[in-house]
Amino acid sequence: MKRLYFHKGRLDLELGGHLDRPAIAYHTYGHLNENRDNVVWVCHALTADSDVAGWWPHTVEKGAFLDPDKWFVVCANILGSHYGTTGPLSPDPATGRSYYTDFPALTIGDMAEAHRILASYLGIGRIHALVGSSVGGFQALEWVAREPERFGKLILIATGGRATPWEIALDETQRMAILADSSYGERRPDAAHDGLAAARAIGLLSYRGNPGYNLTQQDPAGQPVTTTHRACTYQRYQGEKLCRRFNVYSYMTILNAFDTHDVGRGRGGIGKVLSGIRSDTIVIGLATDIIFTPGEMRALASGIPGARYEEIDSPFGHDGFLVEHARLNEILVPFMDYNKTSQS
Amino acid sequence: MKRLYFHKGRLDLELGGHLDRPAIAYHTYGHLNENRDNVVWVCHALTADSDVAGWWPHTVEKGAFLDPDKWFVVCANILGSHYGTTGPLSPDPATGRSYYTDFPALTIGDMAEAHRILASYLGIGRIHALVGSSVGGFQALEWVAREPERFGKLILIATGGRATPWEIALDETQRMAILADSSYGERRPDAAHDGLAAARAIGLLSYRGNPGYNLTQQDPAGQPVTTTHRACTYQRYQGEKLCRRFNVYSYMTILNAFDTHDVGRGRGGIGKVLSGIRSDTIVIGLATDIIFTPGEMRALASGIPGARYEEIDSPFGHDGFLVEHARLNEILVPFMDYNKTSQS
Repeated sequence: MKRLYFHKGRLDLELGGHLDRPAIAYHTYGHLNENRDNVVWVCHALTADSDVAGWWPHTVEKGAFLDPDKWFVVCANILGSHYGTTGPLSPDPATGRSYYTDFPALTIGDMAEAHRILASYLGIGRIHALVGSSVGGFQALEWVAREPERFGKLILIATGGRATPWEIALDETQRMAILADSSYGERRPDAAHDGLAAARAIGLLSYRGNPGYNLTQQDPAGQPVTTTHRACTYQRYQGEKLCRRFNVYSYMTILNAFDTHDVGRGRGGIGKVLSGIRSDTIVIGLATDIIFTPGEMRALASGIPGARYEEIDSPFGHDGFLVEHARLNEILVPFMDYNKTSQS
Repeated sequence: MKRLYFHKGRLDLELGGHLDRPAIAYHTYGHLNENRDNVVWVCHALTADSDVAGWWPHTVEKGAFLDPDKWFVVCANILGSHYGTTGPLSPDPATGRSYYTDFPALTIGDMAEAHRILASYLGIGRIHALVGSSVGGFQALEWVAREPERFGKLILIATGGRATPWEIALDETQRMAILADSSYGERRPDAAHDGLAAARAIGLLSYRGNPGYNLTQQDPAGQPVTTTHRACTYQRYQGEKLCRRFNVYSYMTILNAFDTHDVGRGRGGIGKVLSGIRSDTIVIGLATDIIFTPGEMRALASGIPGARYEEIDSPFGHDGFLVEHARLNEILVPFMDYNKTSQS
């Protein structure tokens, strides 16, 4: 169920800006039990929303690792996004008009702060498990770094402790495509339509990679040479689809926040932060992920005391975390187990 | 030495268009020997030119595999390109004005036909070795398919028998970035500057991949969070650099031609074409190439009778073919060996 929380205070941002009375949109599934010890907090990725059951098939259901009969699952739409939480299209309380390009720059830490604000409002103290995949994992790590004792379990899927040069290059290229569209900057929600579509198509390349495309986008045999290739239709369709459900200013805000990610910043380095994690941690990599490679995921796990590493053998690259729900449930249902928490 | 050949005839193109009296720019290195049996023909990739010694360091020099003391090395700028051969900026003989978007659509086969025209003009019959990397390999395969008896040796580096869905998706995404720039279509050489820069940046991602960026584009330690990342500067610089030396209409023409590549088209399939190759063939893959993966390169080699497969262990992805000249020379100097030719 989607709800909106209007924060009464002011959120000071890491890069110097601030947001007055930010709104936070969130979903919850299941019920908080009497002991208030069945909370599972999910941090979502780039352009997703708070509706985990919508974007992560077969995870929020009976017998799955986010089983709402067992867990009180919370997910908040991230700061800067398009789905109810304050973002560039929201009215700036100072002017009454949408922020657009005046929206302040965010960091992943700011997103984690917004999660803390919401948890506080919801009366949530200890969190049984914190789950983050991709940019969701960035938020999870920022939150754990702020409150290492708060989380029983930590589930990090296809993510990292800092934005790597490769990831930043992917983001910069998307920014270049957006800025090549001269309508970027216009104060309307559908500005830079073509630039955003191209940026999304770039993202898609990195989410799926070579095996993903070659598995699913083969042309039918014997097509005339002039027929539009399936891979072309797919790229255009995916670009268009994002334009219909998102806006370029939120997209830029989140890309920029992505690039600031370094959980070790101001904390003595990533190694120190990771070694200070007290949660029972599992790190899950995807064999063909070209954004967060298996090697990088193994390294992440090895930095966290007692963390277990699991790799899912999937041809779907980074997107595998959305596709391989059967394997995820197989790995995570037992990991989430209640008894283990009490021991942790 | 760069030369220009003005063809007297008309080149009918595979997709229905034609070019009247096309120009072909080419370089030669070394001298054609008396027996006319020391010709090595190099087919260049996407945005390169005919100056092999310029874009392929340490290959055209004493002791290297294109040693000009030994071989008569020829390379022609490809049809549609920017470096002297007829392309979209060339004057259309019918109107006297540059073609721009009216330039006819090309295939890789058309590029191979232009090579045949030049070879014929140069009085070259048998070719000792045909070399192609990347899109150069596409041309080499098209040429071999047309004249399986003409080549003693065939050297295929980081290339393939047809454009895969993944490669087409990479190209389509570049086209989307170019078309997001509303100045595309304007009849001036520097149209769609920002779109072309973004397209090039997308290409770069695919040429280098994760290990390439993470190896060379790390930020200095302790950078303030607001500093521009090296990876961003690199992407912008590379985009800008291409804009200064190329034009968007040639770029589109060549991308489109790339996507038509299927050496088996009209010839009973790729398997049949590859199994008909009579040249002594070596296929070279690069361990971290995400465009032409080692698995795909091995499969290519296994389709060609007696072909040898070599893999270069390089962190530089597809760009490894330009960087790893030492390994290439190590592999190819003995392969080029004269005696072996006589036996083949």
